[in-house]
Amino acid sequence: MTKKSVAVGIDLGGTNTVFGFVDRQGNILGEDKIKTTHYDEIEVFVAALYEKIMVTAKQIGNGINIIGYGIGAPMGNINKGTIEHAAGLPWKGIVPISDVFNRHTKLPVIVTNDANAAAVGEMIYGGAKDMKNFVVITLGTGLGSGFVIDGKLVYGNDGFAGEIGHTAIRPGPSNRECGCGRKGCLETYVSATGLKRSLLKIMADSTQPSELRKYSFEELDAEMIHDAAVRGDYLAKRAFRHTGSMLGFKLADVVAHTNPEAIFLFGGLALAKDLIFEPAKEYMEENLLSIYKGKVKLLASELSTQNAAVLGASSLVWSVKG
Amino acid sequence: MTKKSVAVGIDLGGTNTVFGFVDRQGNILGEDKIKTTHYDEIEVFVAALYEKIMVTAKQIGNGINIIGYGIGAPMGNINKGTIEHAAGLPWKGIVPISDVFNRHTKLPVIVTNDANAAAVGEMIYGGAKDMKNFVVITLGTGLGSGFVIDGKLVYGNDGFAGEIGHTAIRPGPSNRECGCGRKGCLETYVSATGLKRSLLKIMADSTQPSELRKYSFEELDAEMIHDAAVRGDYLAKRAFRHTGSMLGFKLADVVAHTNPEAIFLFGGLALAKDLIFEPAKEYMEENLLSIYKGKVKLLASELSTQNAAVLGASSLVWSVKG
Repeated sequence: MTKKSVAVGIDLGGTNTVFGFVDRQGNILGEDKIKTTHYDEIEVFVAALYEKIMVTAKQIGNGINIIGYGIGAPMGNINKGTIEHAAGLPWKGIVPISDVFNRHTKLPVIVTNDANAAAVGEMIYGGAKDMKNFVVITLGTGLGSGFVIDGKLVYGNDGFAGEIGHTAIRPGPSNRECGCGRKGCLETYVSATGLKRSLLKIMADSTQPSELRKYSFEELDAEMIHDAAVRGDYLAKRAFRHTGSMLGFKLADVVAHTNPEAIFLFGGLALAKDLIFEPAKEYMEENLLSIYKGKVKLLASELSTQNAAVLGASSLVWSVKG
Repeated sequence: MTKKSVAVGIDLGGTNTVFGFVDRQGNILGEDKIKTTHYDEIEVFVAALYEKIMVTAKQIGNGINIIGYGIGAPMGNINKGTIEHAAGLPWKGIVPISDVFNRHTKLPVIVTNDANAAAVGEMIYGGAKDMKNFVVITLGTGLGSGFVIDGKLVYGNDGFAGEIGHTAIRPGPSNRECGCGRKGCLETYVSATGLKRSLLKIMADSTQPSELRKYSFEELDAEMIHDAAVRGDYLAKRAFRHTGSMLGFKLADVVAHTNPEAIFLFGGLALAKDLIFEPAKEYMEENLLSIYKGKVKLLASELSTQNAAVLGASSLVWSVKG
């Protein structure tokens, strides 16, 4: 029997590290996880992770052949195989995770950030299969992005290309503080948290009633605002419109810089469909030079939200192996 | 005697079309020009240009061997070999200039816009010889840009990547009208014309004296503002600072998108040195995420301003031939 080739996709998060065995078509043949927070030392973490992967592989049986490991991690640097100064992880400074991993295996170990992994995932398994030039925007607690140009992920000179979440919305002083220490970053407007902040601002400025006025900032989440907007809540709809318009405004820059065929939106906010796509499309088009108008598709990601991080990470291996 | 290989660089402008024979080192072995405005039909224009090139080649003598033609033209589309809807040229619509040229020669004919040609020129002959990831910004009457990623010029899906001049400075209504029909484009601030506009605005708002108050908008040019600034004129210095700061603000987006090793400034305004580089660097750094801070070089182009367009156009041929 020919063994089935699989890539191991590893989604390294602040709480859990989830991994899965993924075939070329994007089927996950098995998965499991370990607690990231249990390991103060990267060497011990990687040893435990590798062992768990081996054990899980055995449970699947003899039918699989691992061809490599892809790791999606915050601040993952694909050029160097490192994780650099990731605020939410137990290991400080520059962590040479690829090298540590390669003490256990000679197979390729590729590391990059979650958004870049999502972009490659879209190309390997999703809606960008036939595209050479596209961008993926991941909308979660924050805003990440990955650029693919000429069929290849853009790493840049230091391995950190594609951070549109930390471009500023306007020159000069801005009120909205960003977790990165600066002010006015796109992420402070366009993310689940940004949506909440916009809602509060609109609520403060407006006298309109809203079913959301009874909730505290801490109680609110993007889903509640979404549900209220769907029920017709005026302030919730305005918060979505503001979020989408800021996104569209900066997407026009992305188009002018790299002239992609499509931009994919991925993650929680993207599930709000028209509430986010309509204003984003409108403001993007409004801010485009005529040569680009009507040419760039704004699409929903075709990766399933569940497991997307594992899929994205695994796709790094296929993107190298072909 | 071995013949010297040369690329023909063609700078197709609204008034004149200048061409030159350029060797791999960037030496121009001969050049001449024809009047673009004399030719209402693209076929007649190309025939006349080709003949003039042949005549000039003969005058240089038998020592050269033409290996290809590179054309830098406004709205030049490198994917299709066309010039598309260029406002300042005699031919309207989509002009298939490569195809028309190839009726005369079987050698490669490559067309792109001036800023892309400048970017390739910087890589082949200039300061980016050892760089894989960089951006060139051309500051003339307008603002052009060319992106090189992983050693290759970024064309994008429609051949129009790298138009940072037409990204907007802020969301929502802006006062400054752009030639492209929209408002608030970076080019309306960062260009020779943008500098003049900023000076007038500052002059209107301020009560400070200035030697430039005696000149009309039409009389003023970037060089006069430069000379006044060098002599210490307060308003002229403020106009430069404003221009540089707007440039720096949007360069931060370029860095976040593509993480280049360096950004080169080219053209008239770049010759103002510190007057433009200092505020540009300051505002770029201020708007950068910490992972990029202090890492991206802001450099002056090493292409000579005289002949740069011909050099840039010729470099397209070498970039293909190696």
